[in-house]
Amino acid sequence: MSEASGDVRIRLDLAYDGTDFNGWAKQPGLRTVQGVLEDALGVLLRKAGAPPLLVVAGRTDAGVHARAQVAHLDLSAAHREALYAVRGALSDDPGAALAYRLNGILGADSDIVVHRGSVAPAGFDARFSAVWRHYEYRISDAPENRDPVQRRRTAWLSAVLDDTAMSEASGALLGLHDFAAYCKPREGATTIRTLQRFEWRRDGEGTLTAAVQADAFCHSMVRSLVGGAVAVGEGRLEPARLAAILAGGERTSAFAVMPAHGLSLVEIAYPADDALAARAEQTRARRG
Amino acid sequence: MSEASGDVRIRLDLAYDGTDFNGWAKQPGLRTVQGVLEDALGVLLRKAGAPPLLVVAGRTDAGVHARAQVAHLDLSAAHREALYAVRGALSDDPGAALAYRLNGILGADSDIVVHRGSVAPAGFDARFSAVWRHYEYRISDAPENRDPVQRRRTAWLSAVLDDTAMSEASGALLGLHDFAAYCKPREGATTIRTLQRFEWRRDGEGTLTAAVQADAFCHSMVRSLVGGAVAVGEGRLEPARLAAILAGGERTSAFAVMPAHGLSLVEIAYPADDALAARAEQTRARRG
Repeated sequence: MSEASGDVRIRLDLAYDGTDFNGWAKQPGLRTVQGVLEDALGVLLRKAGAPPLLVVAGRTDAGVHARAQVAHLDLSAAHREALYAVRGALSDDPGAALAYRLNGILGADSDIVVHRGSVAPAGFDARFSAVWRHYEYRISDAPENRDPVQRRRTAWLSAVLDDTAMSEASGALLGLHDFAAYCKPREGATTIRTLQRFEWRRDGEGTLTAAVQADAFCHSMVRSLVGGAVAVGEGRLEPARLAAILAGGERTSAFAVMPAHGLSLVEIAYPADDALAARAEQTRARRG
Repeated sequence: MSEASGDVRIRLDLAYDGTDFNGWAKQPGLRTVQGVLEDALGVLLRKAGAPPLLVVAGRTDAGVHARAQVAHLDLSAAHREALYAVRGALSDDPGAALAYRLNGILGADSDIVVHRGSVAPAGFDARFSAVWRHYEYRISDAPENRDPVQRRRTAWLSAVLDDTAMSEASGALLGLHDFAAYCKPREGATTIRTLQRFEWRRDGEGTLTAAVQADAFCHSMVRSLVGGAVAVGEGRLEPARLAAILAGGERTSAFAVMPAHGLSLVEIAYPADDALAARAEQTRARRG
């Protein structure tokens, strides 16, 4: 374990504009959030040999944004020495020092910002300790409300949606279910999830936003759930159909997966420090 | 006048992302909002000879956004014939038809969206009938609150601002004054304005937004006012200094004009239809 080896685990809280990324996960030849951050770590800690690797709470797809993503990495003694070898006043806290240096490398107008770096409490794992993830999906459903400044984070539809019907249909999906009908299948990955929140609200500018929260999400789940709700809002599906499709357990062509750019990861929750390790063990056991 | 000649005056309500524009006003060789719209009108109405020209309520500078801009143009009988010569179902209302066609030419992912086109009431002039303009200025003043998805419409500062001091200083500028100290001078243009609203609020994500409303603004006025308030919020100026600088009537180096990208035009108000012509005459007389 990292603690035993003299490594220090750092928690990074960060945000990004997903527009110009091929998602979180590193892929050869493609610009990804993980790739850009690990390259920056490589530059920063080049004197220490191999840079640390990032483990993330929510692996976002191409085009998906994050206002509050969480990742961790383990700094060896050599990494820490390399971090502090650079001239200039630096915080004694290696998390704060790392965040400061990373933002310096990323630049003032970067599409990734590190909000905070901190030494992680014992047992913390960005992915496995998380208790829930909260995403938002933004829709502008009337051409007269479209705001071009926000088009990179808002899906534009042409017809006004019935948000009352959408809320009714969405609420019926809450709870512990097999969400296979709303997931792109992935080898060996469970589709059993607890959907804790799926609500719609319309703001003063007419934008419709879904708040979607679950312990974890299977692949494409939020964009599928939103696609189902939009079909209800357009009057193409009865509200009760979403729960019936869920119960059927099969993917359907009755609605489309919504485009990525309307989606943002906005919050990830962790238990109290003394429950982090137990939570991580429990999650690993369940996913294994 | 347009009514007498058989022209029909159209009011266009529109929005744009100012990032990739050199402002509203047409300039040879530069991409501007007016230029792109008049080019689109030229394509749409090419059979009618010279396209109509646009008159705008708020001439925004390079990089400034608009969520609710207003412009007018006069369609001659030949223009209307050209508009309806295109195949496809079109509204009988030439305003709605024009808006629909313009959006079609601008494209689905355009940085300009026409929200509405309508036949203007008698006496309407987008510029001279307006009774007030309302701008917003967005600031993220703590690195841990920066949202990269919104960086095109938000100024990023490094130090947390004292918004209570800013509100106090801003409130003291309200009323009818000569705002020469907060304007870039322009030949023959008055700097006497009525500042009706200058308020700061902080939203749930930590973003600080100024609401600034006046009958009209002189050049750079909002960005100067916000620059003064930011200097107060940073503790570099006493709150009472903003009113003292206003009273002095001279531009100062005590604060900087804020960058354009934090600024958005969000609302323009017009009087009731029967007061439009009188308002326009009154404004023209005062500016002359």
